[in-house]
Amino acid sequence: MTAEIIAIGSELLTPHRTDTNSLFLTEQLNGLGVDVVYKTIVGDDRARLTETIALAWKRSSLVITIGGLGPTEDDLTRECAARALGKTMSQDDSLVGSIESRFRARGTKMPAINLRQAQRIDGAVALPNPKGTAPGQWFEQEGKILMLLPGPPRELYSMFLTACLPRLREILPMAAIRKRVLKIVGLTESGAEAIVAPIYTQYTNPVTTILAAPGEVQLHLKSFGADESDAEGQVAGLSARLEQALGDAIFSNDGASLEEAVGRMLASQKASLAAAESCTGGLLAQRITSIPGSSSYFLGSVVCYSNDWKTSWLDVAAALLQAQGAVSAPVAQALAEGICRRSGATYGIGITGVAGPAGGTPEKPVGLVYIGLAGPHGVDVQEKRYFGEREIIRWQATQTALDMVRRALMRQAQFAHPAP
Amino acid sequence: MTAEIIAIGSELLTPHRTDTNSLFLTEQLNGLGVDVVYKTIVGDDRARLTETIALAWKRSSLVITIGGLGPTEDDLTRECAARALGKTMSQDDSLVGSIESRFRARGTKMPAINLRQAQRIDGAVALPNPKGTAPGQWFEQEGKILMLLPGPPRELYSMFLTACLPRLREILPMAAIRKRVLKIVGLTESGAEAIVAPIYTQYTNPVTTILAAPGEVQLHLKSFGADESDAEGQVAGLSARLEQALGDAIFSNDGASLEEAVGRMLASQKASLAAAESCTGGLLAQRITSIPGSSSYFLGSVVCYSNDWKTSWLDVAAALLQAQGAVSAPVAQALAEGICRRSGATYGIGITGVAGPAGGTPEKPVGLVYIGLAGPHGVDVQEKRYFGEREIIRWQATQTALDMVRRALMRQAQFAHPAP
Repeated sequence: MTAEIIAIGSELLTPHRTDTNSLFLTEQLNGLGVDVVYKTIVGDDRARLTETIALAWKRSSLVITIGGLGPTEDDLTRECAARALGKTMSQDDSLVGSIESRFRARGTKMPAINLRQAQRIDGAVALPNPKGTAPGQWFEQEGKILMLLPGPPRELYSMFLTACLPRLREILPMAAIRKRVLKIVGLTESGAEAIVAPIYTQYTNPVTTILAAPGEVQLHLKSFGADESDAEGQVAGLSARLEQALGDAIFSNDGASLEEAVGRMLASQKASLAAAESCTGGLLAQRITSIPGSSSYFLGSVVCYSNDWKTSWLDVAAALLQAQGAVSAPVAQALAEGICRRSGATYGIGITGVAGPAGGTPEKPVGLVYIGLAGPHGVDVQEKRYFGEREIIRWQATQTALDMVRRALMRQAQFAHPAP
Repeated sequence: MTAEIIAIGSELLTPHRTDTNSLFLTEQLNGLGVDVVYKTIVGDDRARLTETIALAWKRSSLVITIGGLGPTEDDLTRECAARALGKTMSQDDSLVGSIESRFRARGTKMPAINLRQAQRIDGAVALPNPKGTAPGQWFEQEGKILMLLPGPPRELYSMFLTACLPRLREILPMAAIRKRVLKIVGLTESGAEAIVAPIYTQYTNPVTTILAAPGEVQLHLKSFGADESDAEGQVAGLSARLEQALGDAIFSNDGASLEEAVGRMLASQKASLAAAESCTGGLLAQRITSIPGSSSYFLGSVVCYSNDWKTSWLDVAAALLQAQGAVSAPVAQALAEGICRRSGATYGIGITGVAGPAGGTPEKPVGLVYIGLAGPHGVDVQEKRYFGEREIIRWQATQTALDMVRRALMRQAQFAHPAP
């Protein structure tokens, strides 16, 4: 079975917004063994929308439309879908009742305009919308399915999961798909590819895709099996080989971000972390504290953007700043040691660099960053040269900093529990 | 003239990636007065891609394909476009030469596989690619245009701007479009709509669109004119009326973000800022320091995630924390005053709250945030209750904090230069 998704709304054809609901639907459909083969974005235009739905209905066995189910003149999906299917619509009184009661619960009366939302394509089943007024519709004919879903993501997600997924599971042949994401830090895409390609190219199942992001490489594994345990076995077999080949370059195999993986390690080792950030300007702290529960291991960060702060808050000697410059290995080390000593954290990170776009010199170009890590092992400093825009440079610096903490925690764990 | 964009590549039909190149192209085309009426995403599939291009060529006067111009078996765009147009292809020796010289400049020999990239549709013009090996193609027939552009954004952007835009400017009728974005803080979407709808609905030109994001509402104005000054006059006229009606709720009319607008005001008033962030965990500092040059007005931030830090780094009395709890108006005030005094900044912000998802109580629910601002005017504290996920709550808290600084700076400027 192949699917196609139609995202509807003139705002999705502006430079400011595009459809992203289809990513959620694609993930859900892939999980059922259904490939998405077309996505179309079309505006609130009667003729174009009707033509688009009619074409999709002709060529694909599963068609999902997103949006255009609101109560206004612009909301044309119901009408155009009916026309594309060659069906009529009628008012569904039970839908009128549920829309009315939704308004009543909020202490207001249903405006007459919302009656449009109670129009149902003849032969379609209405899909309840617990998070909004727009009901969805499910139309099935000769083994083909058309779903009309609302545009607001929380309405779409909840309707799909509660009303569509169970129906699809009943209809679709038993087959299972399992996915796993291996996340890698400290290798370039081609460096990772050189290690993993000799392994994954031996497999047609699972299928492996390699994706690169700043400071991170991801391997996406997808296996197809006769049932869940078959699919799980396929993905686990390849994953084990890749994990062994990549060794400590892998930081997660369950979707966790680097800040989440490091957070788990800190928590399990009952270690704490604090930071002194210059060029990353709080990005490291923001990433770490984006994880719920991070207060159990993260004490805080001093964003020391000025030299005065480096001296008065973190005890970096003014003479050192003078002699070496703020962007230097000794200052990164002093920041790491300063924050560690001042805060009493197990590990202290110090970051200083030139994020750009201005401020670079031939000796200290944009992208030069020093990262210090102080901890029970002593103190390390790494010198890095990153490329790209300011935000990419800052991101990569936090990626390296988190990876340094991760590797120190791994060494510490080995030291505490040496291999026999 | 209406346009349609086809983004090509199986990776764009996975849950992990979608086309965003079309946003750039839409902005460029809109700037020429051309509306984009369809976007299609299709995989590396010969039959589907040929059908998609053929349909687009039939119904739209300007068709742009993105991607599929690489040298591998998966790169089908040239071949499918030729088939859809009913044309043949031949090897273009001057393209062979330029691809070869690109490899030579990097010290390697062109692999034979790259010869595929020198295939040109008969009747098409090759578009040079200064940033990669894949040449683009431009095909024109009976007033219709098909462009084949490469997928990597930097190649696409540079090819479009240098090779396509000048050609389109020659072909398209003289008409100008002007856009302006008014950004609003401190009003909900419906609150802003109530103020601006009575004004902008009087105009069919400019067209006004209202967009909401967490903690911010944007008005996008787009005017069409016979020439640039006509279009500029149209957009300026409506903009002036909207700006007057919205008053100090508008923080920018030139695309600047709130952190950028506040940064400009701080710089022009030669004032400095420092922060003490608890629940926002560095997000405020990260936003402020994402602006190049922010070191001239931003001293730093203390991300004081633990109570100990609030006391030892920012002089918040332990007894106060004990009596009021860390999430309280007096603690927000003490944080603001503490950072202001300790750093010597003109303005000090203190933020404390419950970002969730855990940690809420009936008295102090998730989303409750206190924001203090200390400055020449004294100290204010705002109590806010935000809704949504952890990151949305944190974002809105930084939005309020920046807006408090902005309003204090506006009052300060009025005080320094009172109206006559």
